[in-house]
Amino acid sequence: MNIAYLTGNTQKFEEAEHILSSWHLERAAVDLEEIQGDADAIVCHKASEALRLLDKPLIVEDVSMSCSALGGLPGPYIKDFLRKLGDVGLYRVAHACGDTKAQVSCLAAYIEPGCEPKLFEGKLEGTLVEPRGDMRHGTYSWNCIFLPDGMDKTMGEMTMAEHAAVSMRKMALEKLKKYLEERA
Amino acid sequence: MNIAYLTGNTQKFEEAEHILSSWHLERAAVDLEEIQGDADAIVCHKASEALRLLDKPLIVEDVSMSCSALGGLPGPYIKDFLRKLGDVGLYRVAHACGDTKAQVSCLAAYIEPGCEPKLFEGKLEGTLVEPRGDMRHGTYSWNCIFLPDGMDKTMGEMTMAEHAAVSMRKMALEKLKKYLEERA
Repeated sequence: MNIAYLTGNTQKFEEAEHILSSWHLERAAVDLEEIQGDADAIVCHKASEALRLLDKPLIVEDVSMSCSALGGLPGPYIKDFLRKLGDVGLYRVAHACGDTKAQVSCLAAYIEPGCEPKLFEGKLEGTLVEPRGDMRHGTYSWNCIFLPDGMDKTMGEMTMAEHAAVSMRKMALEKLKKYLEERA
Repeated sequence: MNIAYLTGNTQKFEEAEHILSSWHLERAAVDLEEIQGDADAIVCHKASEALRLLDKPLIVEDVSMSCSALGGLPGPYIKDFLRKLGDVGLYRVAHACGDTKAQVSCLAAYIEPGCEPKLFEGKLEGTLVEPRGDMRHGTYSWNCIFLPDGMDKTMGEMTMAEHAAVSMRKMALEKLKKYLEERA
């Protein structure tokens, strides 16, 4: 079965291709509007919009960062925050508030014609720290300020292999893989 | 000419009706999706969506709060911030960061069939303070933490008449009124 994977990012696509290797993944780059709301509503809306445009089985995903100091925000608005404050600015806000706990999450939605989207989540708990490392994925990245619990390297200090081992995208896509296998 | 004014809030509608008294304003409550993006893009998208549904001249508006400490955010995501942090929580974040300067803005869009939306903005500079007063407009309100520059009362401590005198909605709608008068 062919499945479209919507992303503008080559690395993300390769990660998905590797995990979902039993299916033929096609990379699709479609400009989708993102609505305001919680992470579930945003990714479901993206999936439905993409299905309307492509009319075939597809996967979309969305990344959130929930900071304790901000009552769970920026959440799905993480990209806006990184754009306006930079990673160091976001760390400093959390630090100034005296609470650097954070959670990052990848929510993947699978949808096919005639069906509602199915959601699969991968998440990582950690703390925000002064930026360390230089592995940034994408223009607006939180990798260098996010230290996963129990690790001594930020996501920005990890090699690609170390990164892949703790990837929350991988967790989400492995749940999706299991779902696809079970109904095959 | 009849113009639809989109709001779920009676006070906002009455304020608009008072300012735009030369036109027949009809209150319309339509559930519109709000996209992510900057304030201009969000209000233009709302105006276009509303026009698609109602097919008549109409006004929509959106309120933002730009905090210096957050690099201009929460901006149009102010409602989410108030929902997650409360007004006092938002004040505390700004205070902890050592910068309580803020700007609130009302962006009104006028659109009619076959035309692009026209935007009119009213804004107020001020600072965030510990909540004072109890005049909250709407469930999620920043009135009690916003002290406009040069005033000694927060928006939450003002009487309705005082509030109306400094209203950024009024400023936006008066610009819109002038536009409608000039092309009449």
